[in-house]
Amino acid sequence: MSLALDPAAQDLLFREARTANTFTAEPVSEEQVQAIYDLVKYGPTSMNQSPLRITLVRSAEARERLVQHMAEGNRAKTATAPLVAILSADNEFHEELPHLFPHFPQAKDVVFSDRGVRESQAALNAALQAAYFIIGIRAAGLAAGPMTGLDFEGVRKEFLDDDHTPLMVVNIGKPGEDAWYPRSPRLEFDQVVTTV
Amino acid sequence: MSLALDPAAQDLLFREARTANTFTAEPVSEEQVQAIYDLVKYGPTSMNQSPLRITLVRSAEARERLVQHMAEGNRAKTATAPLVAILSADNEFHEELPHLFPHFPQAKDVVFSDRGVRESQAALNAALQAAYFIIGIRAAGLAAGPMTGLDFEGVRKEFLDDDHTPLMVVNIGKPGEDAWYPRSPRLEFDQVVTTV
Repeated sequence: MSLALDPAAQDLLFREARTANTFTAEPVSEEQVQAIYDLVKYGPTSMNQSPLRITLVRSAEARERLVQHMAEGNRAKTATAPLVAILSADNEFHEELPHLFPHFPQAKDVVFSDRGVRESQAALNAALQAAYFIIGIRAAGLAAGPMTGLDFEGVRKEFLDDDHTPLMVVNIGKPGEDAWYPRSPRLEFDQVVTTV
Repeated sequence: MSLALDPAAQDLLFREARTANTFTAEPVSEEQVQAIYDLVKYGPTSMNQSPLRITLVRSAEARERLVQHMAEGNRAKTATAPLVAILSADNEFHEELPHLFPHFPQAKDVVFSDRGVRESQAALNAALQAAYFIIGIRAAGLAAGPMTGLDFEGVRKEFLDDDHTPLMVVNIGKPGEDAWYPRSPRLEFDQVVTTV
């Protein structure tokens, strides 16, 4: 069974794409990040909530502050990747909803007045968008290195505020030498999919 | 700035792809779902946790039970989509880790002995995989209709067990007549991305 997506694109986005642990020195430009965002912004979220926020860590000083909050095993790559992005969920995303979801402009107050509801919705939908962003990095011909081994509360205090929940940090760039381990196994179809 | 991914693939996966609310009667085969899974299984998760589980609702009897747990506005499309999938997070994913993450076979016990840790990790990583699955449905030339307007506890009790947390229900098929609303706006780059 062949997919509609051409095999080269399948390789670029999934089959040959890998989580990179080393990178070349080639910089990642603002224009590249803009092109990635302009593609993946169309990925679907519940009621078009679009809660993902992206903090690009470009200054040496900010990079140093971030590295201190990474787990030991993630520090060297976070220090050396051409670009590092902190992905977070905006728990006040509902403020944008009257613009983002014109079909139901009251949603902001009717559905999302409770902060707990917003936090759980933002966590799910920002995670979907984080995945679209990873796919977008690959679509740009770059390697992504998403990491969750870090002090989330430290990163929040250092770079964000109480309204933003960090999800992950992503290294971005061209893969360097020995950029990845051998591919780990995946679960078989029958281990994942059941039919009722 | 152009991306490495060819423009037709960009359209197929993001720009022209839309959340469908109506579908043709054309069935979605087991082989199509298998091809989708065999592509998107390579999408990255933390420590290769791979917690996403997929329940395909194929029997008329199961479909009827599911529709009852959907929000009013989601019932008609869930009743008529060629295929419906319940996506859930397996909170006992760590049982597979010695196989899935051979670099660190002790992770199962050292990192994931606590159920609360597993639940939050599974929620994030299954959401990433849900996004990869949505992209995969589009890669197959099909439309996805992901929905979170439903009684999650009802769906869990009806189709899953205490170890699985439902994330969303996804309608899958070829788009039908008037399949979607006009595209809603997206946030501008500067509303989403900040640089430090």
